[in-house]
Amino acid sequence: MDEIKTTQNEGEKLAFQSDYMEGAHPAIIKKLAETNLLHTSGYGSDKFCEEARTLIRKACETPDAQIQFLTGGTQTNSTVIDCLLKKWQGVIAAESGHVAVHEAGAVEYTGHKVIALKAQNGKLSAKTIESYIKDFYADANWEHVVEPGMVYISQPTEFGTIYSKQELSDISKVCRQHKIPLFADGARLAYALGSKENDVSLKDLARLTDVFYIGGTKCGTLFGEAVVVPKPELIPHFLTQIKQHGALLAKGRLLGIQFAELFKNDLYLELGKTADSYAQKIQDALTAAGYKLYFVSPTNQVFFVIENSKLQPLEQKVMYGFMEKYDENHTVIRFCTSWATTENDVEKLLQVIKEM
Amino acid sequence: MDEIKTTQNEGEKLAFQSDYMEGAHPAIIKKLAETNLLHTSGYGSDKFCEEARTLIRKACETPDAQIQFLTGGTQTNSTVIDCLLKKWQGVIAAESGHVAVHEAGAVEYTGHKVIALKAQNGKLSAKTIESYIKDFYADANWEHVVEPGMVYISQPTEFGTIYSKQELSDISKVCRQHKIPLFADGARLAYALGSKENDVSLKDLARLTDVFYIGGTKCGTLFGEAVVVPKPELIPHFLTQIKQHGALLAKGRLLGIQFAELFKNDLYLELGKTADSYAQKIQDALTAAGYKLYFVSPTNQVFFVIENSKLQPLEQKVMYGFMEKYDENHTVIRFCTSWATTENDVEKLLQVIKEM
Amino acid sequence: MDEIKTTQNEGEKLAFQSDYMEGAHPAIIKKLAETNLLHTSGYGSDKFCEEARTLIRKACETPDAQIQFLTGGTQTNSTVIDCLLKKWQGVIAAESGHVAVHEAGAVEYTGHKVIALKAQNGKLSAKTIESYIKDFYADANWEHVVEPGMVYISQPTEFGTIYSKQELSDISKVCRQHKIPLFADGARLAYALGSKENDVSLKDLARLTDVFYIGGTKCGTLFGEAVVVPKPELIPHFLTQIKQHGALLAKGRLLGIQFAELFKNDLYLELGKTADSYAQKIQDALTAAGYKLYFVSPTNQVFFVIENSKLQPLEQKVMYGFMEKYDENHTVIRFCTSWATTENDVEKLLQVIKEM
Amino acid sequence: MDEIKTTQNEGEKLAFQSDYMEGAHPAIIKKLAETNLLHTSGYGSDKFCEEARTLIRKACETPDAQIQFLTGGTQTNSTVIDCLLKKWQGVIAAESGHVAVHEAGAVEYTGHKVIALKAQNGKLSAKTIESYIKDFYADANWEHVVEPGMVYISQPTEFGTIYSKQELSDISKVCRQHKIPLFADGARLAYALGSKENDVSLKDLARLTDVFYIGGTKCGTLFGEAVVVPKPELIPHFLTQIKQHGALLAKGRLLGIQFAELFKNDLYLELGKTADSYAQKIQDALTAAGYKLYFVSPTNQVFFVIENSKLQPLEQKVMYGFMEKYDENHTVIRFCTSWATTENDVEKLLQVIKEM
Repeated sequence: MDEIKTTQNEGEKLAFQSDYMEGAHPAIIKKLAETNLLHTSGYGSDKFCEEARTLIRKACETPDAQIQFLTGGTQTNSTVIDCLLKKWQGVIAAESGHVAVHEAGAVEYTGHKVIALKAQNGKLSAKTIESYIKDFYADANWEHVVEPGMVYISQPTEFGTIYSKQELSDISKVCRQHKIPLFADGARLAYALGSKENDVSLKDLARLTDVFYIGGTKCGTLFGEAVVVPKPELIPHFLTQIKQHGALLAKGRLLGIQFAELFKNDLYLELGKTADSYAQKIQDALTAAGYKLYFVSPTNQVFFVIENSKLQPLEQKVMYGFMEKYDENHTVIRFCTSWATTENDVEKLLQVIKEM
Repeated sequence: MDEIKTTQNEGEKLAFQSDYMEGAHPAIIKKLAETNLLHTSGYGSDKFCEEARTLIRKACETPDAQIQFLTGGTQTNSTVIDCLLKKWQGVIAAESGHVAVHEAGAVEYTGHKVIALKAQNGKLSAKTIESYIKDFYADANWEHVVEPGMVYISQPTEFGTIYSKQELSDISKVCRQHKIPLFADGARLAYALGSKENDVSLKDLARLTDVFYIGGTKCGTLFGEAVVVPKPELIPHFLTQIKQHGALLAKGRLLGIQFAELFKNDLYLELGKTADSYAQKIQDALTAAGYKLYFVSPTNQVFFVIENSKLQPLEQKVMYGFMEKYDENHTVIRFCTSWATTENDVEKLLQVIKEM
Repeated sequence: MDEIKTTQNEGEKLAFQSDYMEGAHPAIIKKLAETNLLHTSGYGSDKFCEEARTLIRKACETPDAQIQFLTGGTQTNSTVIDCLLKKWQGVIAAESGHVAVHEAGAVEYTGHKVIALKAQNGKLSAKTIESYIKDFYADANWEHVVEPGMVYISQPTEFGTIYSKQELSDISKVCRQHKIPLFADGARLAYALGSKENDVSLKDLARLTDVFYIGGTKCGTLFGEAVVVPKPELIPHFLTQIKQHGALLAKGRLLGIQFAELFKNDLYLELGKTADSYAQKIQDALTAAGYKLYFVSPTNQVFFVIENSKLQPLEQKVMYGFMEKYDENHTVIRFCTSWATTENDVEKLLQVIKEM
Repeated sequence: MDEIKTTQNEGEKLAFQSDYMEGAHPAIIKKLAETNLLHTSGYGSDKFCEEARTLIRKACETPDAQIQFLTGGTQTNSTVIDCLLKKWQGVIAAESGHVAVHEAGAVEYTGHKVIALKAQNGKLSAKTIESYIKDFYADANWEHVVEPGMVYISQPTEFGTIYSKQELSDISKVCRQHKIPLFADGARLAYALGSKENDVSLKDLARLTDVFYIGGTKCGTLFGEAVVVPKPELIPHFLTQIKQHGALLAKGRLLGIQFAELFKNDLYLELGKTADSYAQKIQDALTAAGYKLYFVSPTNQVFFVIENSKLQPLEQKVMYGFMEKYDENHTVIRFCTSWATTENDVEKLLQVIKEM
């Protein structure tokens, strides 16, 4: 891709507000350009999609998995959840879960309640889920209440934290005891997989969840999420349902090409590792500078508490994201790294942190 | 884009089955690559989307228009229709309209009936619409029937035909008399605009419809449709509703970049003209060879009747599309050109037609 | 019930416009009054509902049937259809079927398309259904089309005609071959059962359909429809789904009390017989007087063609219903009898017919 | 109604579990019987409905109000909320609100989120609502979150508490400042109106809310809720939307007859007063006997804490309702009076309380 010059961001502010501010990993852009004029059939039936499926099945060690590609996170969440729930059921999620908070009611729009339960550091516990389900059926009026029909978790969570293999196994066990599917939102999965603290592999996800997706949009592609259904019959007529939700891309190959690139040479894992290591540097620098971390995050998102008076000066130099009020005088803000973050920018940010 | 080699399609069959079999116009791929590492904000709030909006507003002569970008046709249809209809209403469409037939019930999924009316050559007439509406309100039981709340047409239609300015004006007049919006699906709009027979400009569409979209997926982009709402207040909270439908692209800039390219140097119009002229050549060749045209199409889709016995031999040489049974011994098939069709391929197809 | 005087309708016009213009059969009113102050549990779990279920199961010879009571026809149709369809499916119905025409889009509101097929005299044929299903799966693009997931018929139909046992068996066979449920709307079932031409018993319905309902609202009750699911597991969590549709009556016993009365002493069958015999007299009188019947109806609804000039004079004497334009000078109108129609009123109507 | 003997409940347990265990007030049964064979037109267009509307408009001092009758509480809630919300909005409710908890997800089924906020004694405060709305619009990402589009409250609440005129005025003010409608669920409204502590009249409700309903099912009718829309244009095409929700009763007159009776001679107010006074006696007796009240309720529902060991003995004598775990050894249960509760039964219950 050397031949194509990209416009420089020189002179701009440092960009740490999010992980979807750039295009795609250069290897992907290169491949999209190379394959641009090839003719293929539509809707994901092409050879690139097949190649990507094969690579993903291998990485997840799920030879039978049904794999479908969608274009974005909210779309994937609302479509998959709708496909998994029976008509009278709702989905259990952390109260901070993306589907509970930041999807404009896309799940409810499909007719289903999001049953928001207390979470810790963005994570649901097996115990919380189990208690809820047991109490539900113990209620004499349960037939008048929305039945919990599945569990939604995010790996990593919206706060950058990750489920350990033990935690995930415990949740999986509860779900299987109660015969409800477990769905993991992997919009930022590369950053969980790349984390030093992570012990949950793709294979573990395929074994312990019933459906999960491998995020592309925030992890190196232009757009796209790869939904993995290890037991393919769990979602019948998935293609039709994706179409019905307006989520079927005509030129499905664009998704296949991108995911095939991500799963060649472990690119997906490498992307995450680098971004996570940068985030850890930033987190360490913040701690060293005396800032309180809102959560200790092992992935690419760093949340910390900052005095309100420092916000405006900071904004002159760095774009940051996701804030909420901490108290009258403090705010929680986020620095977020990504596959596109450069070492140079991290160094500059560390300098800014020292001075802020 | 000379620098990037694209894999050759040599040895493959001729590809005339559809207009979404390749990637994007090379100018678009070039621009996506050049801008790839720039940082921008998400969800269509970036400078590229603004640039594209400005260019489209200028081309449509609608300085106030609200313009939003979605990723595909079915998604755009079901989202826009849902945004335009009151909860108790349905949408009038041709019985052959895409929303009535080929969208897996995406409109009904949002709770609305598609009121399918008789069409001619894929086109609704103002008279048909007016009769339906008048009969509706004349029915003593109208309150128990789905109220027609808008009209959906396609320009060009699913059969490649186009509405003339007079026809469109007549439909528009009926809609305005009855105070219901008119929505034009422009998934293949470039091929209507590029047709020699066409007298409906973008400006006319902006004046005569209430919402229309400029198709990208089939007209030169990787994906994407630009929805134009000349009177912006007609769809309030459009962004939120797009999100709710799972149709909001995180990296909205990808759509902005692509549509900005399409609307520089009249690329959008040029794309269509070339594809249409190729289709006319093919149509002429079919007629000359004695084939019956199913519809006389002035755009990029050619439908004709062929003996069943010729189908298999043809398949060895050309990929064709969209067939329906004509009678026991004949089938209707489609040859479709696109912005990616080459003169060379057309010449080869003309040769095939002579020999088939 | 002799003790309670009912207000006389003296001086009013003759009432033949519909079969839901009065309250309930006197035996039902009597029972409601007698049981009025008894305490029972709610939502259909009371002894009266159990009694009604037992009587209905016996009448239908379906000892295992799940039976639920809802309050009205549109509600029952949209709830049952939603419970039977998978999320991506639609329901096949006659183009004149109540769900296709007169339910304000209640089925679409639940997210499902009504696939309206050509009917004859209001009836779908097994052949029409089979063709549609075969063509559906023969279409290369079937995954982009709404899958036919069940068949809805009305017995009697909206035009008063009835399916014969042979016709019903044929439809049932097609449905079972394609593994989709058959649902019969029995809003006016008493009038089918009471018809001299009828050879379809309750037992046949229970055997040949997968779900059907026994109409109360138009057949002797204040309100209420009894849904019979011969294989109870076909609709899981039915009570919850009824509640979710806003269709669960708190004082479910009201439905139990009413249906128990209808199924004691064959009241339900008797009601229908009388009303049908009156309708036949009216139909004969119309024919004798030279009126063209729009359909030859063996049940309680009589449709005939009348000159427009006669409509207003007729209206002074009789309330009639359901009209549609026949041609410029003629209209189709309906006379409808019911369990509440008296011999005296019929005699008066016959006189009116002679004079009109 | 003396002529009709009702079966005695002698020998049965005392019935205090709910307020929908009997039929209707005898005056209503009498009227239903008297009018039974009258012919009227359907769907609420009859003279009885008009009479009821006139009486209700007078009682509420809202001469222009649109009034529609539905059959049950959940149905009314989900239909009205759906009619009031724009497609992208959700409804604010107390976390203990009926729509948030006990309606099987009927609101979500229509596509809308229930935004459950903290409540005190079952009541939302104006401050809580205002904070939520302000925080909502202060969030930079508000376009990605469900917009609060209306407020739902219950008068009395699910815990028997009531909003004072001041509290209701404050909530009303917040709603009007933010231009969102306020809807009051009056399923048990008679018991709020009849409470000694109540200072909110029907007129106040009509003035301070935008829609409210007058509950019948729990307040003297067989079934039915009267929805009052003081500014009638607030819900256009209400009849059609009621039909679309499967909530339109064919024999609408049944609702008109019942509500007309309730609003003659102040029957509705009297019903509530008596039931409330009985409940207060029971509450006083419980307090005197040393039981902890879960809430101090001024209406017909009494919630108190009881040792688990006492539950089974109590069950032998009294049917009680609605329990939740208080702690390991205690449970919260409910005694509920109604228009059908007799002084004799109350005396017996007071004796049971002394002995339990």
